[in-house]
Amino acid sequence: MTSPEKHNRMANAIRFLAMDAVEKANSGHPGLPMGAADIATVLFSRYLKFDPKNPLWPDRDRFVLSAGHGSMLLYSLLYLTGYEDMTIEDIKQFRQLGSKTAGHPEYGHASGIETTTGPLGQGIANAVGMAIAERKLAQEFGSDLQSHFTYALVGDGCLMEGISQEAIALAGHLKLNKLIVFWDNNNITIDGAVSLSDSTDQIARFKAVHWNTIEIDGHDPDAIAAAIEKAQASDRPTLIAAKTIIGFGAPNKQGTHKVHGSPLGAEEIAAARKALNWESEAFVVPADVLDAWRLAGLRSTKARKEWEERLATTAAETRAEFVRRFAGDLPGGFDSAIDAFKRKIAANPPTVATRKASEDVLEVINGLLPETLGGSADLTPSNNTKTSQMKAITPTDFSGRYMHWGIREHATAAAMNGIALHGGLIPYSGGFLIFSDYCRPSVRLAALMGIRVVHVWTHDSIGVGEDGPTHQPVEHVAALRAIPNLLVFRPCDEVETAECWQLALNDKTRPSGLALTRQNLAPMRKEYEERNLCASGAYELVSAADAKVSIFASGSEVEIAVKAAELLEAKGVATRVVSVPCFELFFEQSEDYREAIIGHAPVKIAVEAAVREGWDAFIGSDGAFIGMKSFGASGPAKDLYKHFGITAEAVVAAAEAKL
Amino acid sequence: MTSPEKHNRMANAIRFLAMDAVEKANSGHPGLPMGAADIATVLFSRYLKFDPKNPLWPDRDRFVLSAGHGSMLLYSLLYLTGYEDMTIEDIKQFRQLGSKTAGHPEYGHASGIETTTGPLGQGIANAVGMAIAERKLAQEFGSDLQSHFTYALVGDGCLMEGISQEAIALAGHLKLNKLIVFWDNNNITIDGAVSLSDSTDQIARFKAVHWNTIEIDGHDPDAIAAAIEKAQASDRPTLIAAKTIIGFGAPNKQGTHKVHGSPLGAEEIAAARKALNWESEAFVVPADVLDAWRLAGLRSTKARKEWEERLATTAAETRAEFVRRFAGDLPGGFDSAIDAFKRKIAANPPTVATRKASEDVLEVINGLLPETLGGSADLTPSNNTKTSQMKAITPTDFSGRYMHWGIREHATAAAMNGIALHGGLIPYSGGFLIFSDYCRPSVRLAALMGIRVVHVWTHDSIGVGEDGPTHQPVEHVAALRAIPNLLVFRPCDEVETAECWQLALNDKTRPSGLALTRQNLAPMRKEYEERNLCASGAYELVSAADAKVSIFASGSEVEIAVKAAELLEAKGVATRVVSVPCFELFFEQSEDYREAIIGHAPVKIAVEAAVREGWDAFIGSDGAFIGMKSFGASGPAKDLYKHFGITAEAVVAAAEAKL
Repeated sequence: MTSPEKHNRMANAIRFLAMDAVEKANSGHPGLPMGAADIATVLFSRYLKFDPKNPLWPDRDRFVLSAGHGSMLLYSLLYLTGYEDMTIEDIKQFRQLGSKTAGHPEYGHASGIETTTGPLGQGIANAVGMAIAERKLAQEFGSDLQSHFTYALVGDGCLMEGISQEAIALAGHLKLNKLIVFWDNNNITIDGAVSLSDSTDQIARFKAVHWNTIEIDGHDPDAIAAAIEKAQASDRPTLIAAKTIIGFGAPNKQGTHKVHGSPLGAEEIAAARKALNWESEAFVVPADVLDAWRLAGLRSTKARKEWEERLATTAAETRAEFVRRFAGDLPGGFDSAIDAFKRKIAANPPTVATRKASEDVLEVINGLLPETLGGSADLTPSNNTKTSQMKAITPTDFSGRYMHWGIREHATAAAMNGIALHGGLIPYSGGFLIFSDYCRPSVRLAALMGIRVVHVWTHDSIGVGEDGPTHQPVEHVAALRAIPNLLVFRPCDEVETAECWQLALNDKTRPSGLALTRQNLAPMRKEYEERNLCASGAYELVSAADAKVSIFASGSEVEIAVKAAELLEAKGVATRVVSVPCFELFFEQSEDYREAIIGHAPVKIAVEAAVREGWDAFIGSDGAFIGMKSFGASGPAKDLYKHFGITAEAVVAAAEAKL
Repeated sequence: MTSPEKHNRMANAIRFLAMDAVEKANSGHPGLPMGAADIATVLFSRYLKFDPKNPLWPDRDRFVLSAGHGSMLLYSLLYLTGYEDMTIEDIKQFRQLGSKTAGHPEYGHASGIETTTGPLGQGIANAVGMAIAERKLAQEFGSDLQSHFTYALVGDGCLMEGISQEAIALAGHLKLNKLIVFWDNNNITIDGAVSLSDSTDQIARFKAVHWNTIEIDGHDPDAIAAAIEKAQASDRPTLIAAKTIIGFGAPNKQGTHKVHGSPLGAEEIAAARKALNWESEAFVVPADVLDAWRLAGLRSTKARKEWEERLATTAAETRAEFVRRFAGDLPGGFDSAIDAFKRKIAANPPTVATRKASEDVLEVINGLLPETLGGSADLTPSNNTKTSQMKAITPTDFSGRYMHWGIREHATAAAMNGIALHGGLIPYSGGFLIFSDYCRPSVRLAALMGIRVVHVWTHDSIGVGEDGPTHQPVEHVAALRAIPNLLVFRPCDEVETAECWQLALNDKTRPSGLALTRQNLAPMRKEYEERNLCASGAYELVSAADAKVSIFASGSEVEIAVKAAELLEAKGVATRVVSVPCFELFFEQSEDYREAIIGHAPVKIAVEAAVREGWDAFIGSDGAFIGMKSFGASGPAKDLYKHFGITAEAVVAAAEAKL
């Protein structure tokens, strides 16, 4: 047991590190770390299973600071519990360029930061994904190797964001009983009291999605401890609603929005020192307090060693598989399986929609990679993401590998991030490309973190047809290409689809999205070719000596480009066609390669059933673009292509006009 | 009272029109119209206040089909109740190119379509906005002129989407008692039973946000009527949870996901005709049934005439104001007020952040335009959207004009759409530009519908500084520019900010977004100029005879461009600078103007603290771009600009390298 006095001193260490760091940076959020310090102290010093010396221990408990603006809470805890890569100097560098201690926790900056948070509501959905991963891996590898809790700390902002509803509804449905969420219930938002904008009965709301709920005083260590113990024993996910005072300890400002997002000022910090009886200078933690914290950091060493012993005595094959899975390495034979698939397809190239092509490839992938966790945001029959191996996961049976995510694109993408961050699994899921907008904030965070998740975005253009402009992406491919570090693939046939999947899965440090068609496409790659041509982002599909016209196209429009080239050739105009399945990979190629692919044909034309933005990099601003300038329309797909002038004939006319 | 027999025949008319239209189109969603036909029949034939002969009557009840895939429900109702622009021929053209009867209801295609729906969850949030508008206008103009209900029909999909939580929490908080939502509780989603992915107790969930809830059998007309009457008398918004059978009447397929999104097939339709005792041919509504429906369509004629009389006897000034407000015309003197503001600013041009400049302009606008309804998604002190006139709206007092939307960007944007669609008000609201991603689906719909809403997006680049990459937009301006029909403004100083606001408000048929800085900017437009230079999207800010270098920039980087030009001039390199506050408006200019602005300087450089995408239209693919190639970082803004090489010196170096 920790004495109240000792607890207070440990918690105050967090408070003063937060105050001092924000003050020094002259920027940041002291309110949350001060208000949640008691919760964090009880959790980290008595319950959280973690080992600062082995921060990647696969069976550690996960802690997600969903209210990421309170980053100094996390940094303080990492420093205090003895993570070697979080020193007091790092704390002093809070919010400075190049420091580990960024304004919001950035995954990869320092050990113990389990995910990047800040955009509200993302963290709680990440945590749901981590809890899914734990349960799935426990089912697969047994509780000897996987048996941990996932904790998250959320604020009012996280709970107001819609993504939180998607996430908690899913967690409640799946009965993720090892998920424990603390709500830092401080009644304050940036505009003022929560009552300005909300009067939700959060307890009732969580009960409505079948959570266990506990209400406590968030400054009472015994109550916090008792709540955690009850939560750990629950058969459902638990919300611990902890009533707190934001900025606890700042005598004149606590409990108001003034402590939320700006430095307290020297005077108020001095007053806090007095009020909390804290005599140390800025950034100095008294030796007894630091010792107590460091001891807390050693608490799970034994558990970690026992876990390692259990791993060591696990059957060799299982052990090797477990280790491989957490290393994120694909099994041997992956590339050759894709190659064999390509060989098979080349022997009899089909006319198929790329969503169906993707299903065919996934059939191979899922047969070989037990780590894939598939799913769809309620568009399974349209996204073609459920292969023969994919039994559905249910609340009572996690032996399946397929998630019916529900109509919840945002939480799906954020939970996928959580699954990838947890390790041991590779999540992919399906949705309509138009709804990439619904989950864009989470896709962006995957790109920022550099994690491997794969989005299967079908129905990728006006080819959607009758559903009309609300369901026809025109700007989405461009908008996704604008996100740094995201691979956006738009394959043109079954072979390219296989190659794009191969690239997506082989890239451990980037998310990918595959834009796939609803409508059938003729095969373009009819000859077997060992190399993954999509790997260079763009390649010459049809070559022509002394070409007068170069046509660049992606996905469903490659067929149109090839047809146009044939028509032009028939008219005696030498024409080449470049397939462009991935802008990002192309831009990474050598300048020589890029120049060769762009070529020197006097006329350059791009064809994509989408907006022009981005294509000038291939055709220049004086090139011709055949695509969309407006939203789409409702009608049969063939009528739409004609109506919007995206046809081989239009390409030919554009070429002739330019020649 | 309607006899059960008559009710059934009226409802069956909807069912068969839906079945027949989907069958003819060989595409569409019969399940919802068939399942919800009883609800719709009771609502439209007995309660909804509407007049097909005066579809824009400002005091009509609003009906939002949030589950937009059930569009045939709405089209059937419009035809049956006698909207003149919805004929049986239009019904037969369902989902054909150019028809009014698009796959999903498209605002503007036909009278009676109050909003475009399809992307799930949007409609319920639109309805919340409409109910806000009604309450606000009732407060302002009195119940003689504004006193109507807003109804919405939602499906399980709408309720699973996170946006629905944001919307219902807000509606409950504001006690929007004239909002009545029917939940078409049919237990079916595309993947199968709702239980595959959800087990939410929706009644408890709505109660948790203080809604009135009523559970009924959605096929019992008396129960439906009783529920509507109870809802109308409620002091809170009401959820009517109506248990229905999807595809009701299709004997072999009803109650399954097979009726959701595809034609029933001739055989099943024949079986339905038999089961429902319906002898008419396809698209034929028996005369007695059509008569009954047409009578229902005349039900509110008297109420509408009485309303017109009340309007006619309203004091002239109030009447004129009411009419002006619903016409969407700005008051006389708006443009001259902006002009006076520009004159004042030019006399003493300040160094300010454009978010502060926006506040200054809004102070003028809000003083003149009583129709503006301001707000912020809990970033009021950061967005600078609350001017002196803006008292907060509270649950008990709608005399204010400022909405504390809460941390709910998505519902905010969708409710703003609802407010604009309702008429009588011009909504604007604030958020961080980074969170435009959170509300992108609603922004897109505003653009698709062509409605006037204004988003104030502050903190628009790495200029955000210490909050780091999770809060620094780099791709957002490009991604927003990719949305057709959306005006994206990025002004460079106070004068440009005023001009951009003027353009945004003067455009009745487009939404706008203003990307504004957190950091201070030096004034660039120091001379008074009567013309709104931003109106052409881009204009020459610094001219140079025989320029060797043209620098194009927007927002905070115009200052850098001008400084670079000065450095280059000092080195004897003639350099011009073009300010580019709005791509979209520039692309609409004459070819001559565009050519003149782009000019013929051998070196073209663009500067924007964002990704390059889109700028090639100005500088060509061989131009130099000074901007971002990656995500940002946490640190003081000045350090970041230097770190990422967005400086006048970098522009000069790029120019010299190219020369």
